Amino acid sequence: MDFLEESVPEVGTYEDFHTIDWLREKSRDTDRHRKITSRSKESAWECIKGLLDAWSGWVVMLFIGLLAGTLAGVIDLAVDWMTDLKEGVCLAGFWFSHEQCCWTSNETTFEDRDKCPQWKKWSELLTSQSEGASAYILNYLIYVLWALTFAFLAVSLVRVFAPYACGSGIPEIKTILSGFIIRGYLGKWTLLVKTVTLVLAVSSGLSLGKEGPLVHVACCCGNLFCCLFSKYSKNEGKRREVLSAAAAAGVSVAFGAPIGGVLFSLEEVSYYFPLKTLWRSFFAALVAAFTLRSINPFGNSRLVLFYVEYHTPWYMAELFPFILKRKNTKLGKYPILEVICVTAITAIIAFPNQYTRRSTSELISELFNDCGALESSQLCDYINDPNMTRAVDDIPDRPAGPGVYAAIWQLALALVFKIFITIFTFGMKIPSGLFIPSMAVGAIAGRMVGIGVEQMAYHHHDWFIFRSWCRPGADCVTPGLYAMVGAAACLGGVTRMTVSLVVIMFELTGGLEYIVPLMAAAVTSKWVADAFGKVGIYEAHIHLNGYPFLDAKDEFTHRTLATDVMRPRRTEPPLSVLTQGSMTVEDIETLIKETDYNGFPVVVSRESERLIGFVLRRDLILAIKNARKRQDGVVSNSIVYLTEDPPQLPPNSPCPLKLRRILNLSPFTVTDHTPMETVVDIFRKLGLRQCLVTHSGRLLGILTKKDVLRHMAQMANQDPESIMFN
Amino acid sequence: MDFLEESVPEVGTYEDFHTIDWLREKSRDTDRHRKITSRSKESAWECIKGLLDAWSGWVVMLFIGLLAGTLAGVIDLAVDWMTDLKEGVCLAGFWFSHEQCCWTSNETTFEDRDKCPQWKKWSELLTSQSEGASAYILNYLIYVLWALTFAFLAVSLVRVFAPYACGSGIPEIKTILSGFIIRGYLGKWTLLVKTVTLVLAVSSGLSLGKEGPLVHVACCCGNLFCCLFSKYSKNEGKRREVLSAAAAAGVSVAFGAPIGGVLFSLEEVSYYFPLKTLWRSFFAALVAAFTLRSINPFGNSRLVLFYVEYHTPWYMAELFPFILKRKNTKLGKYPILEVICVTAITAIIAFPNQYTRRSTSELISELFNDCGALESSQLCDYINDPNMTRAVDDIPDRPAGPGVYAAIWQLALALVFKIFITIFTFGMKIPSGLFIPSMAVGAIAGRMVGIGVEQMAYHHHDWFIFRSWCRPGADCVTPGLYAMVGAAACLGGVTRMTVSLVVIMFELTGGLEYIVPLMAAAVTSKWVADAFGKVGIYEAHIHLNGYPFLDAKDEFTHRTLATDVMRPRRTEPPLSVLTQGSMTVEDIETLIKETDYNGFPVVVSRESERLIGFVLRRDLILAIKNARKRQDGVVSNSIVYLTEDPPQLPPNSPCPLKLRRILNLSPFTVTDHTPMETVVDIFRKLGLRQCLVTHSGRLLGILTKKDVLRHMAQMANQDPESIMFN
Repeated sequence: MDFLEESVPEVGTYEDFHTIDWLREKSRDTDRHRKITSRSKESAWECIKGLLDAWSGWVVMLFIGLLAGTLAGVIDLAVDWMTDLKEGVCLAGFWFSHEQCCWTSNETTFEDRDKCPQWKKWSELLTSQSEGASAYILNYLIYVLWALTFAFLAVSLVRVFAPYACGSGIPEIKTILSGFIIRGYLGKWTLLVKTVTLVLAVSSGLSLGKEGPLVHVACCCGNLFCCLFSKYSKNEGKRREVLSAAAAAGVSVAFGAPIGGVLFSLEEVSYYFPLKTLWRSFFAALVAAFTLRSINPFGNSRLVLFYVEYHTPWYMAELFPFILKRKNTKLGKYPILEVICVTAITAIIAFPNQYTRRSTSELISELFNDCGALESSQLCDYINDPNMTRAVDDIPDRPAGPGVYAAIWQLALALVFKIFITIFTFGMKIPSGLFIPSMAVGAIAGRMVGIGVEQMAYHHHDWFIFRSWCRPGADCVTPGLYAMVGAAACLGGVTRMTVSLVVIMFELTGGLEYIVPLMAAAVTSKWVADAFGKVGIYEAHIHLNGYPFLDAKDEFTHRTLATDVMRPRRTEPPLSVLTQGSMTVEDIETLIKETDYNGFPVVVSRESERLIGFVLRRDLILAIKNARKRQDGVVSNSIVYLTEDPPQLPPNSPCPLKLRRILNLSPFTVTDHTPMETVVDIFRKLGLRQCLVTHSGRLLGILTKKDVLRHMAQMANQDPESIMFN
Repeated sequence: MDFLEESVPEVGTYEDFHTIDWLREKSRDTDRHRKITSRSKESAWECIKGLLDAWSGWVVMLFIGLLAGTLAGVIDLAVDWMTDLKEGVCLAGFWFSHEQCCWTSNETTFEDRDKCPQWKKWSELLTSQSEGASAYILNYLIYVLWALTFAFLAVSLVRVFAPYACGSGIPEIKTILSGFIIRGYLGKWTLLVKTVTLVLAVSSGLSLGKEGPLVHVACCCGNLFCCLFSKYSKNEGKRREVLSAAAAAGVSVAFGAPIGGVLFSLEEVSYYFPLKTLWRSFFAALVAAFTLRSINPFGNSRLVLFYVEYHTPWYMAELFPFILKRKNTKLGKYPILEVICVTAITAIIAFPNQYTRRSTSELISELFNDCGALESSQLCDYINDPNMTRAVDDIPDRPAGPGVYAAIWQLALALVFKIFITIFTFGMKIPSGLFIPSMAVGAIAGRMVGIGVEQMAYHHHDWFIFRSWCRPGADCVTPGLYAMVGAAACLGGVTRMTVSLVVIMFELTGGLEYIVPLMAAAVTSKWVADAFGKVGIYEAHIHLNGYPFLDAKDEFTHRTLATDVMRPRRTEPPLSVLTQGSMTVEDIETLIKETDYNGFPVVVSRESERLIGFVLRRDLILAIKNARKRQDGVVSNSIVYLTEDPPQLPPNSPCPLKLRRILNLSPFTVTDHTPMETVVDIFRKLGLRQCLVTHSGRLLGILTKKDVLRHMAQMANQDPESIMFN
C-alpha cells in the first residue's frame, strides 16, 4: 500500500537551524511547474491560474519594491525629525524637522535659512536664552538625555520583542541565502521592531548606519510577501531567490543606488543567483528606488566634484579585526548597560565637535563637497585673492585660512573618535550598519590628506611631483575627491566589495568622471586588506557565529581525499544504513532513537553494500508516525520495504509498509579517491547537504556539509568545533 | 613499472573541437599550486618564483589592458582617417583626418571650423569645383569606389589569411569560454587580420559596429599573453579565466565603459566567473580604459540630456530572427561577391541621406543630443519665440520648423534602410558588430517618437495625458532622451542584456539621472522580446553553428530520467569498458580501433560491473604509444593493469604495463533515477564532459555533454543532429 505525498504534510520541510538541499528544492519546483503546465491545458481557469503563477514572481517583486521604498522613506523622515528633536523643536508643529520647519515659514530668505524664527533650540524654549555658556550646557544636557532615551528604547525593544533585530543582519542574510534555516529571522515581528529600533538607534547619534539594517528590513518584506504565493512559501529554494532580489531592493533604497543594489546582492550577499533572479532584482530595485523618490522629495543631494589625477587611497581595514575581539569581553553580557554606556560616551564626546554632532551622512556630504565661491563652510575658509576674476567653478588653489586649520584639528579628533566608537558600536544589540561609519572614517582621512596635498602643491609648486601637472594659479588638487576616494577605499577594505562598491559610490555621488580613481582605490584597498587577512567583515561575523556557510571566495587547496574526511572514521562503528526490504518498523524506530543522524543511506543488503538511495530522518519519522496512525495493519513488526514491489513474505506476516515515496533515488555520490577540493566545489555549486562516498560501487561512508566545513576549518588551523549548526 | 606524467607530454591536453573537463583542469591547477607552495619553502629563488607565479595573473591583466587599449586607440584613429578619406584629403598631410586637418590649420576660427582651407573634397582636388551637380556626382562616385575598395580588401584578407576573423566573434567566444576548444580562433593571425579588416570594414561605411570585434581582439590579446606563463598556457581552465577578463577589457575600450565591460563579461559572455576573475576583469578593464584615454585625446564626448518622466520603449527585437534565415540563401556561398554587393548598395543608398552618410556613432551622438540654443543641427530647427529670455538650458517646447520636418523624413528613410541593411550585413564574412547598428535603429525610432510626442504636447496642452505634467511654455518632452531609451531598448531586445546594458548606456552618455527610464526600457524590452522567443542574438548564433553550448539561461523542465538519455540504449550493444587487470595491450588497441568513444569506464570485472574509474581515449593512445617506444618488455600481449599492485601473473608472461597514472579515480556518477534536470544542472555548474550512470552500484551507461544537448534539443522539438561537435 502506498500513500500520497500530500497526506504527510510536513515531508519535505526542514527543521530550524538546518541546511536545505538545493537540488531537492529545485526538483520539487520543477515538479510543481510541470503539474501546472499540464493542468493548464485542461480548462481556462487552470490556464489563468498558470499565468498568475508565472507572473507571481514579478508581482512579489513589485510589492517588495513598494514596501521597501515606503519603509525607507518613512525611516528617513523619522530619523530626520528625531535627530533634530535632540537639538530643538518646531513651534509651527512639533512633527516638523528643522528643515521642514524653516521651509514652511515664509518669512525667511535664502541667506539665513538656518535661523528661522519658528525653530527653537531647547534652551530658547525653556529659558529664552540662545547664546551663552548656560544655554550651551542646557542644550548639551538635553541632547545627551534624548540620545540616552532613544538608545534605551531601542535596546529594550530589541531585547523584549525581537532579539533577531539587532546588528546589521547582513551576515545572517548571507547565511540564510546560502541555504540555512533561521526561523523568525525574517519574520513580521523582526520587521516591525527592526524598523522602529533602527529609527531610534540612528537618531540617538550612535556611530552606526542604516544601510545594513535596511537590507534586513527589505529581506523581511520579501519573506512576508512570499507567504502570498505557495510557489515561494512552500519552497525554500524559490524563497531564497526572492530574498536575493529583496536584498538588492534594500541596498537600492539605502543608497538610492538601484544598480549598485543589484550588484551588491550578486557580489556580496547571494549564493544562488540565476539570471532570472538578476532580472527580478533589477525590477525590485527599480520599483523601490522609484517609490523612495516619490516619498522623499528632498532626495539624496547629488554632489559634484572635479577631476584630479593624483590620489592616495587609505586603508583602515586593519582596524576592524578589533571588533571581533570584543565578543569575549564582560560588557557584552549586559547589553542594555552596554548600549547606554556607549550612547552616553558618544553623545558626550560628539556634541562639542561640530563634525561629530551632525548626522554622519551630512558630514560625509560636506566632506565630499568642493569649495565653491559661495560655500560658507568652515572647511572652505581659504584666503581668497582679492583680484580674482575667474569663473565660480574654476577656483585656483589658495592658501588655507584659519578656519581650515581649525577644521583640520576637529577632523583629526573626529577621526580618532569615529574609529574607536565605531568599533565599540558595531556588534551591540541594536540595529546597526557599518557602511556609513566606515565611509565617514575614510572620508575624514581622505579630506585631511587632500587638504595637505593641496597646501603642499600651493606652497611648493617647484617640487618635482607637482611641477609637471600643477602650474601656479591652477586648480590642481580637489580635497573633496580625496574624501570620496578615501571613503570608497575604507568601505572596500571593510567589506571587500569591488564592483558593486564603485557603482554604489558613483550612483551616490553622481561622479561618473571619477571611475578611474574610484576603481583604483577599490582594487588597491582590496590588495592591502587581503594582505592582512582574506575575509571581509561579514564573513568574519559568520565565522564568529559558527554558521555553516561555505564561502565561494575561499579556495581549498589541500591534498586530502574524500576518504580522509568522510564518516565513519576507521575507529568508529560502521555506518547506520537501512536495507531495502528486510527491516521492520521497530528496527527503524530503534535506529532512529539510537542515532541522531539527519538521514540514512539505503542499501540492497548489508553484505553487498550496494547503494540504492537516501532517506531523511525527518521524513522517516513523519512517514512512520503517519502510517501507524492512518494505515490499518501497520504494527511494530511490519516489514518496511523501499523497493518498487513488496517482498515475498511468509503467510500470516503483518501488512508491509511501503516507503518508496520518501526514498531519494538519486543521492549524490563521489568515490573515495575524489580530492576534497572537488568535493568542496560540488557542495558549493550544487548546494548539497550531504554526499555519499563509494569505493568501486560499495557504500563506504557519508560526507555532510558540516564535515566539509569542519575539515576546512581544521586545514586552516582553526577550531573545527566552531562550526555549530547542521 | 611506472612512469612519470611528465614523460608523456600531451597527456591532459585536448583535441580541437572538443570540450574540456573543468573539474580536471581545476584539480590540475591546484596540484601545480601545491607544488609551487611546497617548493617555495626550499630556497629563496623558488620563493621568488612562487611570488611571481602568484602575481602573474595581475601581470597578464596589465598587458591585456595595455594592448587592448592601444589597439582600440589605433583602430579609432585609423577609422577616423579612412572614413574621412572617402570624402576628401588633407593637403597639410594626407595622414590627417578631417578634424585633425582643420585643427592644425591656424587660420580657421571657431565658427567655420568645418570649412578649413587645408581640407579638400575630392571634387575640389580633381576639378577645383566644390559645389554643383557634377562635383556632387564626382564625390558620390569616389565615395562608392573607396567603400568598395575597403570592403573588397577586408573580405579578401579575411578569406585568405584568417577565416576565423569574420563576424562579431562573441558567440564563438561564449562557446570557447564555456569550455570548447577552437584552435586558432584566438591566435596571432586572427588578431592581426581582425584588427586590420575591422578598420577596413568600419571605414567602408557598412552598417556594422566595431564593438563585438573589439571584444574578439581583446580576447586574442588575452590568449597571446597566456603564453607568457605556463600557469595559463598549460591549463585550459585558467586560460578561460584570463579570456573572461579580456572580454571585459574589450567592452571597456569599445564603449569607454569599464564597469559595463565587467558586467557584460559576467552577465553575457562568461561561463565560469569566480570572484577572483571579477577583480582581475575589473583591473584589466581599468587599465584598458586608461590606456585608451591616454591615446585618444578626443575621447568619447559625454552627452548630457535632460530628464523627462514619460517614455515609450521600442522593440525591434522581432526583426532580428530574419538574420538567421539568410544562412541558407544562395548569396552566402560567394562571400566576396556578397560583401561587394552589400557595400555597393550601402554606399549608393547611404551617400544622399545625410543621416546615413556620416559614421553611425556620430549619428547616434546627434540623436541623443538635446537642442540647446546654440545647436545648428537640422534636427534643432525649431521656430523660436523671438521674445524668449530664458536661460540656455531651459528652453520650453517649441513648434517644429521646416528643418525638423525634413529631418523626420530623412530619419524615417534612414530607419528603414538601417534595419534592412543591418540584417544583411550581420553575418557577412567580415568583422562586424551589432551594437552600434542596433543602437542606431533604436535611437532613430526613439527620436522620431520623441519629436512626435513633443509636437503633440505643444499643440494639445489640454489632452488629459499632458494636462497633469505639461504646462504651456514648459520644457516637458526631450526628444534626445527618447532616442537614448530607444537605443537601450533595441540593444536590449537584440542581445537580452539588462544590467550591463544599463551600465554601459549610462557610462556612455553620462546620464546617471536616467537610470529609471533606462532600467524600465531594458526590462520592458526583455519582456517583449521574450514573448517572441527566449534566445538572444548570440545564443541564436551558437545554435545555428551547432556549438555544444550549455546555456545557463535555458531551463530544462521535462520529466525524463538519466536512464532515458544515457548510452547505450536498449537496442545498442553493451558499453565498451576496460577491466582493471585482465586486458592486454592488444585488446585495448583493438577496442580503440573499433570504437570512436572519447573515453572508457574501467570496471573491476565484466561480471560485477563495479566502477573504478574512467580513462580518456587520447590519454590511453598516448600512454600505450609511449610505453611501446620507451619501456622494455611491453609487447602486444602484456597485461595492462590499472590497480595499485600488479596482478598475479603466470611465470614467463611478458612484463605488465601499469597505467594507473592516466586513470581518473573520481569519475562523476549519477544513478539511473536521477532526473535529467538535475543532470543538466550538474553538467552546467561543474562543467562536466561526461558522467557515468549507475544502478545500485553497477555501471549502466554513460552520459556525455553531447547526449545531454541532443536530448535538450529533442525535448525542445529541435533537430538533435544540429549539435555537431563533441
